[in-house]
Amino acid sequence: MSAGRGAARGLFVSFEGGDGAGKSTQLRRLAEALRAEGRDVVVTREPGGAPGAEEIRRLVLEGEPGRWSPVSELLLFNAARRDHVERTILPALARGAVVLCDRFADSTRVYQGAARDVAAAGPLPAPDLAMADALHALVIGIEPDLTLIFDIDPEVGLARGVARGGEELRFESLGLDFHRQVRARFRALAERFPDRCRVIDAGGEPDAVFARVRAALAERLAAA
Amino acid sequence: MSAGRGAARGLFVSFEGGDGAGKSTQLRRLAEALRAEGRDVVVTREPGGAPGAEEIRRLVLEGEPGRWSPVSELLLFNAARRDHVERTILPALARGAVVLCDRFADSTRVYQGAARDVAAAGPLPAPDLAMADALHALVIGIEPDLTLIFDIDPEVGLARGVARGGEELRFESLGLDFHRQVRARFRALAERFPDRCRVIDAGGEPDAVFARVRAALAERLAAA
Ligand SMILES: Nc1ncnc2c1ncn2[C@@H]1O[C@H](COP(=O)(O)OP(=O)(O)OP(=O)(O)O)[C@@H](O)[C@H]1O
Ligand SMILES: Nc1ncnc2c1ncn2[C@@H]1O[C@H](COP(=O)(O)OP(=O)(O)OP(=O)(O)O)[C@@H](O)[C@H]1O
Ligand SMILES: [Mg+2]
Ligand SMILES: [Mg+2]
Repeated sequence: MSAGRGAARGLFVSFEGGDGAGKSTQLRRLAEALRAEGRDVVVTREPGGAPGAEEIRRLVLEGEPGRWSPVSELLLFNAARRDHVERTILPALARGAVVLCDRFADSTRVYQGAARDVAAAGPLPAPDLAMADALHALVIGIEPDLTLIFDIDPEVGLARGVARGGEELRFESLGLDFHRQVRARFRALAERFPDRCRVIDAGGEPDAVFARVRAALAERLAAA
Repeated sequence: MSAGRGAARGLFVSFEGGDGAGKSTQLRRLAEALRAEGRDVVVTREPGGAPGAEEIRRLVLEGEPGRWSPVSELLLFNAARRDHVERTILPALARGAVVLCDRFADSTRVYQGAARDVAAAGPLPAPDLAMADALHALVIGIEPDLTLIFDIDPEVGLARGVARGGEELRFESLGLDFHRQVRARFRALAERFPDRCRVIDAGGEPDAVFARVRAALAERLAAA
């Protein structure tokens, strides 16, 4: 449906935003609603979403933080993404499914594309957003048809997350300043990619947020 | 020592060429000889050479062939290489060591940079030498000071390999035509990078090959 995807007929929607914004909750609700309407829906997530990609997910998310240099991590995420796109997302789109993906390349731009450990890179190229963008263009190339960016005050989002518990606390422990930067970086991506990105106010009750999600999807489908 | 490496004082030598050419044999001999002369020598190999990189090595070399798409594999090799360069090679060079590395980026150019499964890539960027080169420039950037390209008739090299046995038969089973292409691709790299590459006639007895290795190293040290 989007430029450059050729014969793919489905709709590719990514769910992006900081921790606890409600991405996974809203994704499940949207999947349920679309299935009730008789749509073919594929629910997937990153990193992961295909057998090889899930192995890479374990490599990246398990073990001590700092185990991978920022650039190795960026490459591992892209290796997993290529596997995921080739083996899960494109086949689903080709048969006309709606693909709902929990995090995609924008999360890599926000988290791995922040300049980190630049001094540690020494004579090697340092990781930053330009590297993340160039790598995406080189080995992935495609973007979602619609990206929902769940936007919330990090204090509210993190408070939700604490209630939930969970395994992947790599970024959750990094402090409020970090999460404010994450929020700003997602908003900047929405401005940079206005055609595919919609900022969703993720505050308030789940029903209210879901109404905003449905409105953004309806707008996208009307435009198609 | 090479341009762009800044303060690194050591010497970085990569050993390249097809299966059974004698890379590992000659690397061991050179390490022994240089140590006998009192040199600080670090012996390493790819994929691998650092703890994270060795985990990626297992991911790539174990399991069925075809498990990874060519582009995912290319990304995994580069993720391992970045880890290896950052954590093993650059620290060794910084303290003045001679680093002898069994395969490096030229093997990726030859094996992962061959256009494969181009049709399978569909709307995604297809893997080829240009992609391997662009990826190297983007995330690695450095090259060895000296690359020894072990050049041998594949029939001779593969006959040696059969005597040896061994675990990594991924490429060895691919037939003579494939190995002839590998040889031609390594030779093309030697022409493309004449400053750092030396083609070593890898035929004949190990002592004779070793004399050629020593001559190439002496020439490089004299030029430094
Ligand atoms: N609108 C909401 N109001 C209050 N709590 C919510 C709301 N939406 C989700 N939650 C709760 O907040 C927690 C985090 O939600 P969810 O897992 O959907 O967020 P997420 O964006 O997927 O987070 P992460 O990035 O950590 O995966 C869950 O416990 C969920 O039940
Ligand atoms: N000059 C030589 N003449 C005959 N046999 C040799 C010679 N050099 C090495 N061999 C033998 O050939 C086999 C392959 O050599 P070696 O492992 O050094 O090759 P290699 O280039 O490292 O191969 P691979 O790419 O498969 O690792 C070994 O059994 C080794 O003992
Ligand atoms: Mg979630
Ligand atoms: Mg060997």
